[in-house]
Amino acid sequence: MKGRLFLVPNTLDFGVEGAAVDLQAVLPLQAITVAARLTHWAAENAKTTRAFLKRVNEITPLALPLQSLAITELPRPPKGGRTDQSANQSAEWSRLLAPCLDGEDLGLISEAGLPAIADPGAMLVQAAHAAGVEVVPLSGPSSLLMALSSSGLNGQSFAFVGYLPVETGARMARIRELEALSMKHQQTQLMIETPYRNSALLQALLATLKPATRLSVSCGLSLPGGFTFSAPVSTWRNAKKELPDKVPAVFSLLA
Amino acid sequence: MKGRLFLVPNTLDFGVEGAAVDLQAVLPLQAITVAARLTHWAAENAKTTRAFLKRVNEITPLALPLQSLAITELPRPPKGGRTDQSANQSAEWSRLLAPCLDGEDLGLISEAGLPAIADPGAMLVQAAHAAGVEVVPLSGPSSLLMALSSSGLNGQSFAFVGYLPVETGARMARIRELEALSMKHQQTQLMIETPYRNSALLQALLATLKPATRLSVSCGLSLPGGFTFSAPVSTWRNAKKELPDKVPAVFSLLA
Repeated sequence: MKGRLFLVPNTLDFGVEGAAVDLQAVLPLQAITVAARLTHWAAENAKTTRAFLKRVNEITPLALPLQSLAITELPRPPKGGRTDQSANQSAEWSRLLAPCLDGEDLGLISEAGLPAIADPGAMLVQAAHAAGVEVVPLSGPSSLLMALSSSGLNGQSFAFVGYLPVETGARMARIRELEALSMKHQQTQLMIETPYRNSALLQALLATLKPATRLSVSCGLSLPGGFTFSAPVSTWRNAKKELPDKVPAVFSLLA
Repeated sequence: MKGRLFLVPNTLDFGVEGAAVDLQAVLPLQAITVAARLTHWAAENAKTTRAFLKRVNEITPLALPLQSLAITELPRPPKGGRTDQSANQSAEWSRLLAPCLDGEDLGLISEAGLPAIADPGAMLVQAAHAAGVEVVPLSGPSSLLMALSSSGLNGQSFAFVGYLPVETGARMARIRELEALSMKHQQTQLMIETPYRNSALLQALLATLKPATRLSVSCGLSLPGGFTFSAPVSTWRNAKKELPDKVPAVFSLLA
């Protein structure tokens, strides 16, 4: 009997100082009890996974002491966010799956939210399917979809496009391209940014988008002080809203 | 003081006979306790909302008896899934917000998963922003993102495109268009279908997509017997996998 690959959700407070939320504010009891039972982990980051499991242990005792758990970090992703694999990488991902082939359940966990979304975990899931390992997703918070639902923008057609280019000209061109795509398909476009660049991205969006385009920014969802501000660009320009620079944010636009 | 608009997640067993899942399998305790406290609701469907609140009551007693709660159904959405509003509709949505303007918190709930995503609720959220009502999303299950994370397909760039056309020629053309978009942007394309047409959509996808395009189908996520099958189209064609016709499914492709 092969083990299964459980996709274990994490909280949304990664990297936010002093903001450890109650696990039960964002995770179902089932996700917490499954996490407590798993002894093998594939993790985006071993240290943050241990911190997560300490919090799990306060609600449901772990099956093994923290230091006895097998936590392996995912290999670094290839540049460009493609999911293609070189032969080498493919072997690395297969090695991560070894516990499942030995009959052990394995947990995949990201630094925040659902694994394999906006992180490199998808390749492990792909390897699991190729090896005939059952993949079991657990319900948990997705900052992207919480941001989308809070935006009031079109939730019947939307796209997540990751990060925008950092270079000014390329970024502006990309913003124009996304606005045109959004208008053509009436599709909400979602993007994220490294928190210290939140304000820079907001300024670039306000400088580039058309006044009637609707823009929504969700900051620190599920955290104290978290908010969503959603309005036409013209309103944003007058509101002079400031964004925090240490809190994750999701930006959504609909032209 | 205005009340807030809480976006309350629902379970994923809507319309699936005999499959009522334990609320704590998919909802955080916080979502359950907030739902128990709310006395005003805007709901996609009042009957299923009452059924949901009955289950909430088994874990956390409701603040008022079920029959004393104010549950108002959302107006029917305009054709075509656009979020534009006629003046009439706009007034209807504002009326739904009245409890917030009177200082009462209001819950928005869909028949399944997160509200305002793949349902008409986004217009109420938009009205809330326009009226200066704070919007608070609660963590809960999203079948779309659980399907995406389980697919092993690209989770760094993806789009949800809703339903495909029903007519054969238009459907085939749309599948080809989505495959081309997916290849051009390396973007996973997600779609849904009315459960009794699951098999027909699968057959259309297998008949139309290129052999190397990867296709993932997630059926009944979070429910007993739920599964995700993810493989290249060529493998699907040989596997002759059958889909249940009464269980919600999410289809994802990456070319």
